[in-house]
Amino acid sequence: MLLTNINDPQDLKKLTIPQLYTLAEEIRQFLVENLSKTGGHLAPNLGVVELTLTLHYAFNSPKDKLIWDVGHQAYVHKMLTGRRDMFPTLRQYKGLCGFPKMNESPHDVWETGHSSTSLSAAMGMATARDLKKEKNYVVAVIGDGALTGGMALEALNHIGHEQKNVIVVLNDNEMSIAPNVGALHNYLGKLRSAENYQWAKDGLEHWLKAVPAVGGKLANLAERFKDSMKYLLVSGVLFEEFGFTYIGPIDGHNMELLLETMKIAKQTKGPVLIHAITKKGKGYAPAEADSVKWHGIGTYKIESGDTPKSAPTYTSVFSETMIQLADEDSRLVAVTPAMPAGSGLIPFGEKFPDRLFDVGIAEQHACTFAAALATQGLKPVFAIYSTFLQRAYDQLIHDVARQKLNVVFAVDRAGLVGADGETHQGMYDTAFMRTVPNMVIMAPKDENELRHMMKTAAVYDGGPISYRYPRLPVRGVKMDADMDVLPIGKAEIVQEGNHVAIVSFGHIFEIAEKAVNQLQEEGLQPMLINARFCKPLDEELLIRLAKQGYKIITVEEGAAMGGFGSAVLEFYANTGYHDVPVEIVAVADYFVEHGSVKEQREEVGLTAQNLVDRVRAWMPVTKGVVEA
Amino acid sequence: MLLTNINDPQDLKKLTIPQLYTLAEEIRQFLVENLSKTGGHLAPNLGVVELTLTLHYAFNSPKDKLIWDVGHQAYVHKMLTGRRDMFPTLRQYKGLCGFPKMNESPHDVWETGHSSTSLSAAMGMATARDLKKEKNYVVAVIGDGALTGGMALEALNHIGHEQKNVIVVLNDNEMSIAPNVGALHNYLGKLRSAENYQWAKDGLEHWLKAVPAVGGKLANLAERFKDSMKYLLVSGVLFEEFGFTYIGPIDGHNMELLLETMKIAKQTKGPVLIHAITKKGKGYAPAEADSVKWHGIGTYKIESGDTPKSAPTYTSVFSETMIQLADEDSRLVAVTPAMPAGSGLIPFGEKFPDRLFDVGIAEQHACTFAAALATQGLKPVFAIYSTFLQRAYDQLIHDVARQKLNVVFAVDRAGLVGADGETHQGMYDTAFMRTVPNMVIMAPKDENELRHMMKTAAVYDGGPISYRYPRLPVRGVKMDADMDVLPIGKAEIVQEGNHVAIVSFGHIFEIAEKAVNQLQEEGLQPMLINARFCKPLDEELLIRLAKQGYKIITVEEGAAMGGFGSAVLEFYANTGYHDVPVEIVAVADYFVEHGSVKEQREEVGLTAQNLVDRVRAWMPVTKGVVEA
Repeated sequence: MLLTNINDPQDLKKLTIPQLYTLAEEIRQFLVENLSKTGGHLAPNLGVVELTLTLHYAFNSPKDKLIWDVGHQAYVHKMLTGRRDMFPTLRQYKGLCGFPKMNESPHDVWETGHSSTSLSAAMGMATARDLKKEKNYVVAVIGDGALTGGMALEALNHIGHEQKNVIVVLNDNEMSIAPNVGALHNYLGKLRSAENYQWAKDGLEHWLKAVPAVGGKLANLAERFKDSMKYLLVSGVLFEEFGFTYIGPIDGHNMELLLETMKIAKQTKGPVLIHAITKKGKGYAPAEADSVKWHGIGTYKIESGDTPKSAPTYTSVFSETMIQLADEDSRLVAVTPAMPAGSGLIPFGEKFPDRLFDVGIAEQHACTFAAALATQGLKPVFAIYSTFLQRAYDQLIHDVARQKLNVVFAVDRAGLVGADGETHQGMYDTAFMRTVPNMVIMAPKDENELRHMMKTAAVYDGGPISYRYPRLPVRGVKMDADMDVLPIGKAEIVQEGNHVAIVSFGHIFEIAEKAVNQLQEEGLQPMLINARFCKPLDEELLIRLAKQGYKIITVEEGAAMGGFGSAVLEFYANTGYHDVPVEIVAVADYFVEHGSVKEQREEVGLTAQNLVDRVRAWMPVTKGVVEA
Repeated sequence: MLLTNINDPQDLKKLTIPQLYTLAEEIRQFLVENLSKTGGHLAPNLGVVELTLTLHYAFNSPKDKLIWDVGHQAYVHKMLTGRRDMFPTLRQYKGLCGFPKMNESPHDVWETGHSSTSLSAAMGMATARDLKKEKNYVVAVIGDGALTGGMALEALNHIGHEQKNVIVVLNDNEMSIAPNVGALHNYLGKLRSAENYQWAKDGLEHWLKAVPAVGGKLANLAERFKDSMKYLLVSGVLFEEFGFTYIGPIDGHNMELLLETMKIAKQTKGPVLIHAITKKGKGYAPAEADSVKWHGIGTYKIESGDTPKSAPTYTSVFSETMIQLADEDSRLVAVTPAMPAGSGLIPFGEKFPDRLFDVGIAEQHACTFAAALATQGLKPVFAIYSTFLQRAYDQLIHDVARQKLNVVFAVDRAGLVGADGETHQGMYDTAFMRTVPNMVIMAPKDENELRHMMKTAAVYDGGPISYRYPRLPVRGVKMDADMDVLPIGKAEIVQEGNHVAIVSFGHIFEIAEKAVNQLQEEGLQPMLINARFCKPLDEELLIRLAKQGYKIITVEEGAAMGGFGSAVLEFYANTGYHDVPVEIVAVADYFVEHGSVKEQREEVGLTAQNLVDRVRAWMPVTKGVVEA
């Protein structure tokens, strides 16, 4: 095993190229074996084995800065930088993070999770380097999908304009390698220096321009040549227009070629873009065959690629219900920023291909595009993860809410998200949407109520409306046959009680219910309320609670600061009820790391036991008997 | 006067081209005269007179959708759509809005204020049109600056990919019209149909390719030709790469040419980009000479272009202090998203050209770029308007706060902004930043304290820190010679008092002080506190207030929901002080329209009188005498 001797990128540099290929195979085997037990982002990492090996071979990390866009493809990088032994704990509580993490290694110079930040990071590091008159290379590795993100394009523009020495590796796993491009690979493989490359490029350009026009039309042969040329020259024009020197496309699994290209890039002045074609899932047949499924995966059987049957989730309820609603209302359309699978919109798109709009990784555009659809009388459902909706906050305010447009925000992955950890937690949506005028904000207590809220949103025409639901299996409650339109701003009193009212917002209701059941066994009967709405609040009910002297415990799976509980406090302050005791049970003010949702809930105190303790503390109990 | 007969775009269509030119002159005169009294965005509107006239001549608004990016250049559009008589009220309270407004006219099909949304809007409207099987044109007018905004690039990518029939007019007022380009203008002016255009384009392409290489180098003549060609063909390659048919550049003041080009665009399948070169301020010499100054302007004398001397502002204090801080600390650098003038960073850039980074209209990139600078030990000050910081919310969370990087957020235009109105109000910054872990949030009570806070932020190394200041003249307080480092999380007790404590956050302190002065004359003495910090709060002081039985009135110029007052409520709820009466004086939950800041404050109740009334209501007063 070569792999066991690689504990630092320096160890890599002692290897020959053939040994690198052997190592690549060992790494693939390691990944396939380990991830079969832990789950993780298998396909993306199998795709960048050679890219990662050659980057660490050609550059000197951490002096040279290697920046991984999104970061879920940094497993190989982690293996090569002394963290191989931690893989059995990957994405587990207190274990190895699934994304780059500065406190894990000095080789992780930039943390990610969200897409399209790497070029801004590279530009910042290169600018600081030049200002401090230091010498090092800055390399960003970005996927073709992430490059459609607006901020990546903003950075591309800035880097090109300033002509900074930045090397961008475009990890392109969308473009298939057409046979006629193969010749160019071989051609490029023969290049041995930057000068040679420049000479060859000039020659090709000259030759391209000399292609004769025959009878007003270009001859077929020339046409064909031009098409294949396009890969070398014209497809790079976009980047050249932005001011980059473009090199590619090259085979991202050919390490000789990668190393030669990196050598050229190091010698080139100004920004360089290396266009590398890779195959997601490479080397593991099931992942090669279905890279979408194997992008992020749970446990699996290595031989067959079989995965345990997954339980129905809130997302699958959303998925089915969207089709039902679209059947009923032809105005209903769906917008997703590159998450048709994750958001459960594939079946919708199959049934209504004209009504599903996947706009790419482009949250800002997606939101405003939805707003514009609404101006024309359509009813767009913008399906987005809570954490990514942060990217469209201004658009939600300026384009949707300010114009009071009928856009539905289907906020998936709300609350604690488990293994993806701190970059993906759906913590802030309630708080940041609540400050925005005209918003209606809902959260269902379970999957059955999710359907009612989807119906409610679909028929609501008073402006933007949202519902949030978690990355969790359904609770398995009884499903109503029909969908109801819920009255806006009305809570549900699940159970009357005395002294204390637990007011739950959203799916965390399950722990509130559990707490109440447990308390009932002890002879305590708090009131149990499913708030349904954070905005507008059920003011009538809140006033009743105040007048009847209830103590209130709010509970939600989201940031405590500015969230649902805060809304309740504000309501009482504004209405002059200054003596209603309110306790907020929510997520405290820090970034919650990866682990299972259960472990995360324990950590932040979102447990039935916590609620039980708080109710007990407030109940006028004497030896288990409630006072009248 | 032709102008007086134009009350609807249909009236325009009866005119001949020469009459259009006469009308253009009348419009310029109207704008220069009216804006001399009201102020407004003069230069941008003078630049688009011909563009707007021809758009309304060539298209049928509102059936055809005309979308104005940013929207401050829609004055001519407003004049042509029945709102000429309202110009004396431009940007004034209850008067004509400075941006498109749906409730003013059916011709305003999309509201704006923030940049770079028009292409997303156009794509949404075109998509809805096709889905509903309707027929109309969708035209977006976008400036060259706005096009660098990430969401515009996201939309460009989406439109090109879907090959939607959308017409984009690139209003380019940056590129100077070089003499050798003039020939092409004339050439294009002769084109009479789309077929002719295509033929000519093909011919030119052919000819370009045939330019011979002489001795391995292109001859000078050919080189020069190529440069001029570039304007026609190569400069459009960027757009062609995105899938657009590119036409241009053309003279955006030549109406024959504009109309011909629009005719071609209407006949072209798929997305078209018309590249029009315009001159900001055209026709008014002072504005032509200094389009930055005349971009948005107050009142002025028409003959001389003289403007009243403007009073020093919070921004000018920021401007001077930045230089002082940068002198003291070489790590300090400044980042601005295309607002060097508005943010007062021009003098900084003149003194430290290497340390000012204007990244263009690119808020997302700007924020993450600043984060990356901070990873390398620099101390970036990200100067941004409150309303535009909404665009970088995810980057603030994911890239800055989560990585706990030392980025300073200098939040300008915080609070009510006056004439720019609802799209530009700085309402949400406190609320949306407060929910984010690791943030320190400050706001100075006056311009003197702004300097102390800038110093405090400059030396703070515990992560991100922000201070917010308004678009207002300074109060004229005494300025301290030195800058102090304020203790983090400590409020200032400005004056001890009894019964009621007014806790003010930020520059709205001026009304709190005024209220207290007035109350003192009545013999009432509330306590007056300058909070300084919203996060972390001065917990010790808040506990003291609770223990001593104070009633609390918080005041801030920002959204009430989730803001500073809400933070105080949460603190008491979390610490078990459930009976502290807190009233929140802040901006209620709606979008505040244009007017003066004074009028806006009256409207939302941010007045000394409101505070006086509230204090009185809470004071145990009998006939003007405070009870012991």
